Amino acid sequence: MAAYTESIEKLIERLMKFPGIGRRSAERIVGYILSAGREEIHGLADILSKVKEIVHSCRICNNLCEGQECRVCSASRRRKDIICVVEKHSDVNAIEKAGAFDGVYHVLMGSISPLEGKGPSDLKIDGLIKRIREDHIQEVIIATDADTEGETTALYLAKIIKPLGVKLTRIGVGIPMGSNLEFADSTTLSKSIESRRAV
Amino acid sequence: MAAYTESIEKLIERLMKFPGIGRRSAERIVGYILSAGREEIHGLADILSKVKEIVHSCRICNNLCEGQECRVCSASRRRKDIICVVEKHSDVNAIEKAGAFDGVYHVLMGSISPLEGKGPSDLKIDGLIKRIREDHIQEVIIATDADTEGETTALYLAKIIKPLGVKLTRIGVGIPMGSNLEFADSTTLSKSIESRRAV
Repeated sequence: MAAYTESIEKLIERLMKFPGIGRRSAERIVGYILSAGREEIHGLADILSKVKEIVHSCRICNNLCEGQECRVCSASRRRKDIICVVEKHSDVNAIEKAGAFDGVYHVLMGSISPLEGKGPSDLKIDGLIKRIREDHIQEVIIATDADTEGETTALYLAKIIKPLGVKLTRIGVGIPMGSNLEFADSTTLSKSIESRRAV
Repeated sequence: MAAYTESIEKLIERLMKFPGIGRRSAERIVGYILSAGREEIHGLADILSKVKEIVHSCRICNNLCEGQECRVCSASRRRKDIICVVEKHSDVNAIEKAGAFDGVYHVLMGSISPLEGKGPSDLKIDGLIKRIREDHIQEVIIATDADTEGETTALYLAKIIKPLGVKLTRIGVGIPMGSNLEFADSTTLSKSIESRRAV
């Protein structure tokens, strides 16, 4: 006999879909939700729905935004002729926190992963090529993860971008092989951007 | 410069209030929320609000319920003359999962903790005394945690319940000292209920 009520079981099931959240963690979160103030939880429910409604991808770089262009693309002080190519949104956030880059981004929305059945056509590469061709780009920094998928993606990008005649670099020193970019500390990230090398 | 949008930062802040969720976990959860289906997230928001609205405490035992009485108190097959006293809702769920108890519960909604400034008056003890006095209770099993707060609470309860002349037991063998009841496995919990001893 389940001691929780029907709606609590439903909530637990939904929370267990969160990455890293098992049944025990979900139950603890439900405990917090039940003991928290009414305003707090309704506020959370509202912001959840709101984020799902108003947040979408920047039409230029695929970064998260609430208008047509993201904060980086619409900032006048950023260099628009240097593009840092990353796999996902959290990578943009990690590099922004490091504060060592004043160009713009391109979010691929993934990486090439044969094991997961993801190939180049599943990534936002066309838009990147179009930007390089049309926006007088001086340099493209490939900042994909240093794991197998990230390296594969970097090699593929190098192969198709090199013929376009743009300066192409790969972030390097600092990121330990096999680890993910989003988990690197700010100093390591800054270092890796400073020490980028031609591909 | 924050790369996340304003509403995402707000959502991250709210998620970080969940127990065990730091900034990194909150960011990963946001990643899931952004990639999940619209229906899925609106469903989550709805159930969050719903739980906050319709779930409350059983008027008899303080267990979670959606009507007036919880599933255990309203079940005709449960023995109504034996009460298992626990600290919190998740303890009821743990014991129900073990399936070794066919009586009813009383949730104290906490434990005596001088360090946190919580005394007997902060717990739902009056209702328990009233039930023992008025509902022809045969036995009260004290199933508070085996940590300092739980033991203190058990001692306090023993002191005030004993004069009422009801059979009083404490769950015992099986729960390792210093650990919390909700983390015990079902077998340990069953064993501890079987081997309860008179206080």
